[in-house]
Amino acid sequence: MKKEFLGDDFLLTNEVSKDLYFNHAAKMPIFDYHCHLVPSEIYEDRQFPSITEIWLGSNHYGDHYKWRLLREFGVEEEYITGNKSDRERFDKFAEVMPYMAGNPVYQWTHLELKRYFNIDKTLCPKNADYIWNETNKQLKDLTTRKILEKFNVDTLFTTDDPVDDLHIHELMAKDKSLKTHVAPAFRPDKAINVERDTFIPWVKALEKASGRGISSLNEMLEALDSRLKFFVDHGCTASDHALDVVHYKKGTTYEEANNIFLKGLKGEEISFEEQDAYKGFVMVHLGKQYHKYGISQQYHIGALRNNSSRMYSILGADTGYDACEDQPFAEKLAGLLDELDYNDELPKTILYSLNDRDYPSLVTLMNCYQKGGVRGKLQLGTAWWFQDHFQGMQKQLDYLSCNGLLSCFVGMLTDSRSFLSYPRHEYFRREFCDYLGKLVEEGKYPDDRETLAKIVEDVSFNNAKRYFTRP
Amino acid sequence: MKKEFLGDDFLLTNEVSKDLYFNHAAKMPIFDYHCHLVPSEIYEDRQFPSITEIWLGSNHYGDHYKWRLLREFGVEEEYITGNKSDRERFDKFAEVMPYMAGNPVYQWTHLELKRYFNIDKTLCPKNADYIWNETNKQLKDLTTRKILEKFNVDTLFTTDDPVDDLHIHELMAKDKSLKTHVAPAFRPDKAINVERDTFIPWVKALEKASGRGISSLNEMLEALDSRLKFFVDHGCTASDHALDVVHYKKGTTYEEANNIFLKGLKGEEISFEEQDAYKGFVMVHLGKQYHKYGISQQYHIGALRNNSSRMYSILGADTGYDACEDQPFAEKLAGLLDELDYNDELPKTILYSLNDRDYPSLVTLMNCYQKGGVRGKLQLGTAWWFQDHFQGMQKQLDYLSCNGLLSCFVGMLTDSRSFLSYPRHEYFRREFCDYLGKLVEEGKYPDDRETLAKIVEDVSFNNAKRYFTRP
Amino acid sequence: MKKEFLGDDFLLTNEVSKDLYFNHAAKMPIFDYHCHLVPSEIYEDRQFPSITEIWLGSNHYGDHYKWRLLREFGVEEEYITGNKSDRERFDKFAEVMPYMAGNPVYQWTHLELKRYFNIDKTLCPKNADYIWNETNKQLKDLTTRKILEKFNVDTLFTTDDPVDDLHIHELMAKDKSLKTHVAPAFRPDKAINVERDTFIPWVKALEKASGRGISSLNEMLEALDSRLKFFVDHGCTASDHALDVVHYKKGTTYEEANNIFLKGLKGEEISFEEQDAYKGFVMVHLGKQYHKYGISQQYHIGALRNNSSRMYSILGADTGYDACEDQPFAEKLAGLLDELDYNDELPKTILYSLNDRDYPSLVTLMNCYQKGGVRGKLQLGTAWWFQDHFQGMQKQLDYLSCNGLLSCFVGMLTDSRSFLSYPRHEYFRREFCDYLGKLVEEGKYPDDRETLAKIVEDVSFNNAKRYFTRP
Repeated sequence: MKKEFLGDDFLLTNEVSKDLYFNHAAKMPIFDYHCHLVPSEIYEDRQFPSITEIWLGSNHYGDHYKWRLLREFGVEEEYITGNKSDRERFDKFAEVMPYMAGNPVYQWTHLELKRYFNIDKTLCPKNADYIWNETNKQLKDLTTRKILEKFNVDTLFTTDDPVDDLHIHELMAKDKSLKTHVAPAFRPDKAINVERDTFIPWVKALEKASGRGISSLNEMLEALDSRLKFFVDHGCTASDHALDVVHYKKGTTYEEANNIFLKGLKGEEISFEEQDAYKGFVMVHLGKQYHKYGISQQYHIGALRNNSSRMYSILGADTGYDACEDQPFAEKLAGLLDELDYNDELPKTILYSLNDRDYPSLVTLMNCYQKGGVRGKLQLGTAWWFQDHFQGMQKQLDYLSCNGLLSCFVGMLTDSRSFLSYPRHEYFRREFCDYLGKLVEEGKYPDDRETLAKIVEDVSFNNAKRYFTRP
Repeated sequence: MKKEFLGDDFLLTNEVSKDLYFNHAAKMPIFDYHCHLVPSEIYEDRQFPSITEIWLGSNHYGDHYKWRLLREFGVEEEYITGNKSDRERFDKFAEVMPYMAGNPVYQWTHLELKRYFNIDKTLCPKNADYIWNETNKQLKDLTTRKILEKFNVDTLFTTDDPVDDLHIHELMAKDKSLKTHVAPAFRPDKAINVERDTFIPWVKALEKASGRGISSLNEMLEALDSRLKFFVDHGCTASDHALDVVHYKKGTTYEEANNIFLKGLKGEEISFEEQDAYKGFVMVHLGKQYHKYGISQQYHIGALRNNSSRMYSILGADTGYDACEDQPFAEKLAGLLDELDYNDELPKTILYSLNDRDYPSLVTLMNCYQKGGVRGKLQLGTAWWFQDHFQGMQKQLDYLSCNGLLSCFVGMLTDSRSFLSYPRHEYFRREFCDYLGKLVEEGKYPDDRETLAKIVEDVSFNNAKRYFTRP
Repeated sequence: MKKEFLGDDFLLTNEVSKDLYFNHAAKMPIFDYHCHLVPSEIYEDRQFPSITEIWLGSNHYGDHYKWRLLREFGVEEEYITGNKSDRERFDKFAEVMPYMAGNPVYQWTHLELKRYFNIDKTLCPKNADYIWNETNKQLKDLTTRKILEKFNVDTLFTTDDPVDDLHIHELMAKDKSLKTHVAPAFRPDKAINVERDTFIPWVKALEKASGRGISSLNEMLEALDSRLKFFVDHGCTASDHALDVVHYKKGTTYEEANNIFLKGLKGEEISFEEQDAYKGFVMVHLGKQYHKYGISQQYHIGALRNNSSRMYSILGADTGYDACEDQPFAEKLAGLLDELDYNDELPKTILYSLNDRDYPSLVTLMNCYQKGGVRGKLQLGTAWWFQDHFQGMQKQLDYLSCNGLLSCFVGMLTDSRSFLSYPRHEYFRREFCDYLGKLVEEGKYPDDRETLAKIVEDVSFNNAKRYFTRP
């Protein structure tokens, strides 16, 4: 039987799924433990000038999922990140939209129209006028804080550089009118990426932020530790690392790592093997700190970034020119986790990969480091970025359920720069409830509704809440 | 409800799918942009001596898909590529056929019986006499040109060596009675494979074909360019590369590449790193030429070839002893595409891999190099060779639709040496229509029949036509 | 329609599947060609002290599938491998069980309750008392031999070290009352792993077992050959290798391999490249011996073992700290198989990988070495260890059927240390029958019930029987 497009029963294929979704999942608040929202836009309760701004962004900052599809369709860059007017860019997006059949952006965009604007029409040239007018009218009232309330966002972690002064976070912490708990997450990628242009300026920024001179690796690590303490004092319970390729070399000494650090400070070239030594050393140091403070670390593995030099020189990073890596990394990742685990200094850790072919290694490695007394200490991260779609989430759930426990999963996040991304939690919860419903349907699990409901509520919210709360 | 074996609704599971297939897909002509048919067999309107010849081949040239299965079943080689009579070989094939349940060869073979010969019986010992007699009788009239007409083949690209004189293609171009447009595709693998036995004789053949002496890489490239121009003058708009492993080294100089070329000309051993430098250099050169002439390039990645030395010494290449590679290549492929893209000299490019685990990298890399003004400039190639079956096509469609646009896809090809392979287009179209139909069925796309029909017609034919037509 | 939990029609979705399962698959005996049962437990007709002992094991020996899940749930190690009482450990297991929804252990455990103990209740705190009492009562009568008879186990291969004296196997061979044919399988991993601590003591044990001094590689290989002959004389027709990573270097000379052997004997460090040379050399030698004796070899590829040094020091190997490797290996595996195939000395070989991403390479490589006269000489191994679940088996069947022949498959094994694992054969057979039934349902194969029944009976039992019987 043909289902209504994004209808009430969207993704819910049986009675168990529907019960679990409507009576349990849908009622839970959102715990968005990883996103890229800008803190000041929350604090200042930003209002958006137009639907184009929020969908397609501006000033080289926006939704590169959509940009990539427009480019694939052959749309000229001036309509994507260029100087065309908001209306012209909107119209181009509306023109291409019907041809996005099958892509998650099609479903997300229309879920956003439904859930934020109560619009049931599809985006296409015929409806462009109506949707342009209606969304822009409603956007006058739909500020960021109203969005957070509407979607029942209990907690939200932004992604922050260790040198950030967290001033906005301080202000938000004091603001009683803000219903959502907003906390910073610690993302020290620039301390790790000793081989990049960003390293020297960042170390200088760290000197300034920490009020210390830095001329050795130990001094950098001490400064970093002091920033981590500062973050902890501001409610931070999560860190995040874009590992891209996993670097680790067993038995690296401080002297070795420090020499590479010094090369980096001089802007000298750092070899791949030196990156293994330096980065592994720093990751181990940070892991121990996270463990000490009860911080959960997130390893985002497998991005191959900035693949178009031409466009990088024009638009910079995070503009839609990234891809999935395909390097093996299980042995190095095992080495890194094992070194931390050896003296029981491994913090809670979430392992993501941008390449679904890595799930077998990740989910099996994960269960080599679990720990009595902590439920789901190691996690297989939810389907990330290029995997964040129906099929990608199915794969993540399949690998997790076949070699681990769905019931311990901390669930979904938005990982988004857009305030319109909250329906992705709905999308995930529908799919997750249907995953469980199908187990019952297929005779693989009894109709123990009470346990299933508990699992659904835990995975929707409770597990993340517990995971990211300092004991 | 049990469906009829290869019945009218084969692979079509709902009303939308059926409408899209029967009213749109089925009506479109075929644009077969990559195959291995022999031009003279078309020009001379070849007639086949027996169904064995066309199914199992002869003289070590034939359908290695089938050969591999017969070998797996334990059939002696004399029935496969050996000296047994056509009838004996046919009977052996008929004997094994029922045990091919689940393999695409089973479905293909019976689609061929239905579509070419109007035979509904299954191939098995009981029906062997009837099928042998009936097909051979009909084959008297079923010449190659009649097949092309019967299947509405609008265009067909053969695969040709740069040293080929294209004489047959010239004759076909002048032959008004030939309804199908047949053009050559440029496949310069032997120029790239500097480490192989074939290199020196091929350079000599290139000297002859181009009428120039070749004693440096520049001279070879100039000769190759002249051949490409010659191909272009004969209607060529496609090239093809069997990359197997992707070779590329950033910053390779002409001197470096030329030294390796000279080693190759002397028959000296070429290391893997030298292959990176030489092959990457030549690929970049050719890519720029393709861009200049509006040629689309096809990268066929991931074959591990000739794995049985014993059988290679008896039967030679392409006889059923190949497999899927498993080397990572995303970084090198990104480097190669990026170098071409940097000054906007990247031609239209189709990326295939023989290993489905490479799809995440391919489909995401593809969208790092799209270009305003060209719809679907970069393509994720259709499920190729060992992936060419229902599940393989599902995966290709899934990865494409989740990270790109189905609507821009250039669709199916046969990649075949057999004139009986055209039903693979039907197979693909049925599966593709059902893929779209299911999106509607599951509420993931509205029942916008007009757009869906357009997507189906584009993917069946129009996209390829546009992609391979010089502007 | 919701199916009963593990009901009669479990995994069977249509009429064809049900017919194939109940009238054919279910009637076939079991041929368990690879397991880790302890021979003396069979010979002595062991009785189990409690359900905890058989489910969770003791003395660091037990079912690490279950241990891993308990650890993931945060259960303290004292309940898993520690000193808590059997009842306390059982209660903890019962407490966690409902939260194993989706994991195969949930389904296996309840199939075991049904098939061994005729218990239909689910394991949870509420039913813990009943299940504890009932299973322990029944276990008084349910000895190992009764289990083998109950499950119609025709043949069973244990896994044995070449230095084993096979005394228990001798006794079993003479014991007319033992209905199951129990034979040893030859597993010479310790001869291959020249880089490990186990090497020197094992060579000493081999000296003792073979009655020869060993001071060169040739002497070790001769001793090993004599042990293989001894195994053959005790009915051995299978060998097994835990390759983890595939090591092979083409053109390795005896001198080269012997030098590495001598380094190993001195306890010196062996590099990765040296392992390639030594291990490849020994694998080739053994392969030729297997071919000579009609032994089938099993290559288990892709385990990354003992990833927690901390727990390894406490519990040792095989205690739940292993994971999936992700190294490419197709080229080396092709080299190894090709060298054996070159003079037609390649034995029957089963290729397993612990990482499902390796299936494309395995299934295509497999069909490069098939041989006239032997049906299914090379095999894609059944879904192994971390892949042994519904989804993993679907993938194995999919890859096999798309690039090979289901009908030649030797089918399922338990690979288990537990006498309660026989329902995994039922699980596989149900899934396999449904796989075929769906082919008919979807119009991909005609309803040729006779051939389908033959395929089912062959894959359930006959193929393995023929494969592992010396001609």
